[in-house]
Amino acid sequence: MSLPQSVVSPPATPVVDAAAFLAQAAQHIGARRVLTQPADTAAFQQDWRGRYQGQALAVLQPGNTAEVAAVVALCAAHGVAVVPQGGNTGLTGGAVALPGRPAVLLNLSRLNRIRTVDPANNTLTAEAGCVLATVREAAASAGRQFPLLLGSVGSCQVGGLVSTNAGGTGVLRYGNMRQLVLGLEVVLPDGQVWNGLRALRKDNAGYDLKQLFIGAEGTLGVITAAVLALHPPLRQSASAGVGLASVQAAVDLLRLLQDHLGERIEAFEILSRSQVHLVQTQVPGLCSPLAASHPYLLLVEVAAPDAGWDAGAALEAALGHALEAGLAEDAALATDLAKAQRLWDLRHHISEANKRAGFTVSNDTSVPVGRLPEFIAQVTAQLEGEVPGITVCHAGHIGDGNIHVIGVLAREVYATPEACEAAAAQVNRIVHEASVALGGSISAEHGIGLMHVARLERSKPALDLALMRQLKAAFDPAGVMNPGKIFRE
Amino acid sequence: MSLPQSVVSPPATPVVDAAAFLAQAAQHIGARRVLTQPADTAAFQQDWRGRYQGQALAVLQPGNTAEVAAVVALCAAHGVAVVPQGGNTGLTGGAVALPGRPAVLLNLSRLNRIRTVDPANNTLTAEAGCVLATVREAAASAGRQFPLLLGSVGSCQVGGLVSTNAGGTGVLRYGNMRQLVLGLEVVLPDGQVWNGLRALRKDNAGYDLKQLFIGAEGTLGVITAAVLALHPPLRQSASAGVGLASVQAAVDLLRLLQDHLGERIEAFEILSRSQVHLVQTQVPGLCSPLAASHPYLLLVEVAAPDAGWDAGAALEAALGHALEAGLAEDAALATDLAKAQRLWDLRHHISEANKRAGFTVSNDTSVPVGRLPEFIAQVTAQLEGEVPGITVCHAGHIGDGNIHVIGVLAREVYATPEACEAAAAQVNRIVHEASVALGGSISAEHGIGLMHVARLERSKPALDLALMRQLKAAFDPAGVMNPGKIFRE
Repeated sequence: MSLPQSVVSPPATPVVDAAAFLAQAAQHIGARRVLTQPADTAAFQQDWRGRYQGQALAVLQPGNTAEVAAVVALCAAHGVAVVPQGGNTGLTGGAVALPGRPAVLLNLSRLNRIRTVDPANNTLTAEAGCVLATVREAAASAGRQFPLLLGSVGSCQVGGLVSTNAGGTGVLRYGNMRQLVLGLEVVLPDGQVWNGLRALRKDNAGYDLKQLFIGAEGTLGVITAAVLALHPPLRQSASAGVGLASVQAAVDLLRLLQDHLGERIEAFEILSRSQVHLVQTQVPGLCSPLAASHPYLLLVEVAAPDAGWDAGAALEAALGHALEAGLAEDAALATDLAKAQRLWDLRHHISEANKRAGFTVSNDTSVPVGRLPEFIAQVTAQLEGEVPGITVCHAGHIGDGNIHVIGVLAREVYATPEACEAAAAQVNRIVHEASVALGGSISAEHGIGLMHVARLERSKPALDLALMRQLKAAFDPAGVMNPGKIFRE
Repeated sequence: MSLPQSVVSPPATPVVDAAAFLAQAAQHIGARRVLTQPADTAAFQQDWRGRYQGQALAVLQPGNTAEVAAVVALCAAHGVAVVPQGGNTGLTGGAVALPGRPAVLLNLSRLNRIRTVDPANNTLTAEAGCVLATVREAAASAGRQFPLLLGSVGSCQVGGLVSTNAGGTGVLRYGNMRQLVLGLEVVLPDGQVWNGLRALRKDNAGYDLKQLFIGAEGTLGVITAAVLALHPPLRQSASAGVGLASVQAAVDLLRLLQDHLGERIEAFEILSRSQVHLVQTQVPGLCSPLAASHPYLLLVEVAAPDAGWDAGAALEAALGHALEAGLAEDAALATDLAKAQRLWDLRHHISEANKRAGFTVSNDTSVPVGRLPEFIAQVTAQLEGEVPGITVCHAGHIGDGNIHVIGVLAREVYATPEACEAAAAQVNRIVHEASVALGGSISAEHGIGLMHVARLERSKPALDLALMRQLKAAFDPAGVMNPGKIFRE
């Protein structure tokens, strides 16, 4: 919403001789790895959502860390901006080259080796271009599990996942990407290679430099490889759908389940009645596992590595306590894998259902878990009161305090792109103001990229912004690394 | 070892008028909170191990964040160094004021409020001076658990724990302090207060600034409060002693137990035969739970929040698999709490036993878990071959790859302080070189402080040191924050 395509102006006149610069780049990585023809670059230049059109001089495809370093050093010498890119699955335009100064898109996909797997240490070392699915398979082949999981598992890459501190469905149990990274290899803005590929769980020998680059969205350097933490594989799981009267009941139920099941809660996701209704009416064959409609439907999964533990019995017993305590109105255990799959299909078809129902405006908000009831009540009332023709849905990782507030706008009311954009801005303003007032975040997992720069400026205290800029200036004084992302250029 | 007391010279002539400066400090925090008499300051000026004697102009005891900010701003204006101090339980001299420039010891003990406990969000907010035991009690009172635990639980404080990224016995399951901190309040080197007291599990709105201050040992600012993550309380636990033929067996057993018990392994600690022998012979009443002596004794504890899970049965079943697989030579389950206590007493009396047996040199090393067998074999052979009169013991958090290599030096061979110091230097050199060669850390959990500055310089690549200095220079350009720690002044 923040930067419609029309704002993107034609490329500024480069201060460098583009042809000479690209010829030098070709000497480092090979001419066929320097893509300049629109037919070759189109898929890289536009972001995944089709919202931004990049203006890079070329897409460069280095094949290893040394080539990345050579290219970054060349860019630094010529003042050419470097925009790192992985699977190009980001949702905020973080891998788009802006106009205004010459830039290259540095696509890391060819750095796609799993360098080592160390089952004894529960780690593996993957290059930046490794696709998440490949990492998960490599872990599974060694009898381990890499628990990070998100929708783009088949195309998102390690470098992007680390750079955006990716979340996904496993955060409640395993943490964000930051908690799964033990070491990094990074090409610094001047082209030096920092080898921080350590594989230690305890290391207090000086500043933990890798933390700088995790979640920095490529603005401080180019991540070329990472040491990732593995977990034991799961051998037991069980899922259930639970009908709840309120968000408060979900918060209380989370605590009850944690008391009974500890860290074995693998997923704890909520859908509002409005959201369940939209999925049921828009996607044929999907329906709630419960006989009646409830204000909220909670989907919960428990899982564990031990074969001896009975996940279904444990979940059933814990839900029995919840029913007795009056926290749940109804509950249905998925008695086999097919039924569990159908349950989770409800969750996975939310985007599809909402798109069919109208123009959707989704937000990626987190607040402290205990503030969720207040937050949801407040934004729902305000959105319904102020935005005509809106259906307000809620869905998300409620166990992490991360809720997606989704406004579905009736097409008959919002018939033009301008009307949609204006309504979207209104929805976002209401949601962001409420979340910030409750100590929340305007971007729980998607990052800032290009899309949320102005919102970040509005929502963060001045001192936070000053400290961030101080960090950026210290490590990238020339501002060559992914300019215009996180910070306004 | 790195800075014998004799090296500490008398205080340099202050460039400020100390009396006038302290009078101004008294205006901010009250005259009785400015301690200058040796009788009042002695306990703060000397480190816990009695190795370093500090040279601060005064010990300041501010009572809240605003007073800390006022004092730090005053110091910045006068170029007076600020040495933050919590419970003064650090092991590397990190809270000692060096000679060479005027400095104050900023003791945070009076910032000792638990500001909030939020059981729904599984968080609490504690001021820097809160003692760890107090935090654990506050969590327990709210039906939660704060899992960090170390020997100095009754005196170490939150600010120091965050500043040193403390480890302890729960790292395998819960992570280091870094994994338990959701938000921070920090007084910056210029006296500004940064309010980063967020309580979110997912927040990708810009750089994660709190990471800078965690483990920075007070060199980038003064931590005044922290939001800490809580866990469900444990209701079930079981312990066992396991006899092993080798370190490799311990590594393999860890994986087997993780496969069977997942994250329910609460502790996984090893003692070499030599270490068990020293404890048994030096501390009356303590003995191994196993009938025979084995090359290694492993102590393992499993625990969980659910009342329905039988910890003893689960551990017994898993150890049965280990015996069948030939990974363990023998195993004894502690059948009641008293027996479990006696088992863990072996571990807790290591320092005492070793001190009785001779002059001890202990190291705080981590290596990737799979490299432990190689590391231990190598340093043992080298120490036994090169250091006369040494008994080499190993003990530690082997599940984290963190092993303490302990040389116990016979008093008859090492009769003078000089002989002890020389032998200690030799032991440390051998251990550090071996750990660095295997991708390990010279300081797994104790930090650098004053004691390991020279070692850090020798063991870290030049680029790492340059990046650390870059960070320091960016956030504390005048170098007022805890000078001489981590970096040579």
